[in-house]
Amino acid sequence: MAQKGEGTVDEHVDARVVRTRNDVLSAAITVLVDEGWEALTHPRVAKVAGYSKATLYTHWPTRLDLVRDAFVHFGQMPHHVPTGDLRADLTGELTSFRSAMVENRLDRAMTVLVELAATVPELADARDRFVADGERVMRAVLAPHLDGDALEAATVLLCGAVVHTSMLHRRPITDGVIDAAVDIVLRGLPPAR
Amino acid sequence: MAQKGEGTVDEHVDARVVRTRNDVLSAAITVLVDEGWEALTHPRVAKVAGYSKATLYTHWPTRLDLVRDAFVHFGQMPHHVPTGDLRADLTGELTSFRSAMVENRLDRAMTVLVELAATVPELADARDRFVADGERVMRAVLAPHLDGDALEAATVLLCGAVVHTSMLHRRPITDGVIDAAVDIVLRGLPPAR
Repeated sequence: MAQKGEGTVDEHVDARVVRTRNDVLSAAITVLVDEGWEALTHPRVAKVAGYSKATLYTHWPTRLDLVRDAFVHFGQMPHHVPTGDLRADLTGELTSFRSAMVENRLDRAMTVLVELAATVPELADARDRFVADGERVMRAVLAPHLDGDALEAATVLLCGAVVHTSMLHRRPITDGVIDAAVDIVLRGLPPAR
Repeated sequence: MAQKGEGTVDEHVDARVVRTRNDVLSAAITVLVDEGWEALTHPRVAKVAGYSKATLYTHWPTRLDLVRDAFVHFGQMPHHVPTGDLRADLTGELTSFRSAMVENRLDRAMTVLVELAATVPELADARDRFVADGERVMRAVLAPHLDGDALEAATVLLCGAVVHTSMLHRRPITDGVIDAAVDIVLRGLPPAR
């Protein structure tokens, strides 16, 4: 983990630490997505990020530290900002999710993380947190209208539609299919509680 | 590809060829799922299957031939047999899909194939066929009730719910969530055409 300032360090140093973290973790994700887990070494990431190996080892003593923080960093991707209009919020969040798949190559990062976590048990927590962060907005949008198994079902139906299309069909879900999926789920909501 | 008999070969030989194919392709899937793509070599699969390397090279000259046929073989997994009762058919197919994830380790095979096909372009067709085979029964059950984007949406919502839960939550979807998902989609079907 990065050694953050503790109040005695001035803001200039803090800002520099934050920038270093962002640069290195973005580079780590790029290496992981483009070149795979085997390529994710301190020397390779240092080279791609343009920092010294010593800097990387100071902030992240092990590869696991580096990959864990990289996925936390990646998990902080943009989401739709809910407006209170359920249809607009579901459509907006599915569209944001699709953008992350296409522009941030979330599909690739997700595949790598799932595959990695299956063989490196220490990464299971990172995967679970990454998935929970990804679903958070969708659950928050649905929660006023559903609970229990119905809330879980609506979440995995909608998130699953984007995941399934991106990972298995290997093309982004279209606007027409997003609209049709939202129509089905809106009509299918249980009677108001 | 296996050299199948062409009418002049007696049934005994045919049956033996079929058995050899099944044994070898099942072993190939086991190796792929347990040990990964790197382990999928003719010597390793021959050893696991209990056949000679020469037999494997005769039937599958290259690793790509072997992995392609293995996924076709794996894709012929059991599906729900539709009864005409839409609720029972959706629930039955989702339950079959979940069983394949758990018992046949479909989640693992799918992750490996997606990851492989992203880096080995020659496997893209195998992946697409595998996915299409997996969705065929679901599409057939839904097709009398939906078309166009709505049919696509219902297919990726329902298949996606199982894929998302198995691959990202790393636990099988529960009966309660399957029932709630089917409830949402049944209520959400567009008005009869």
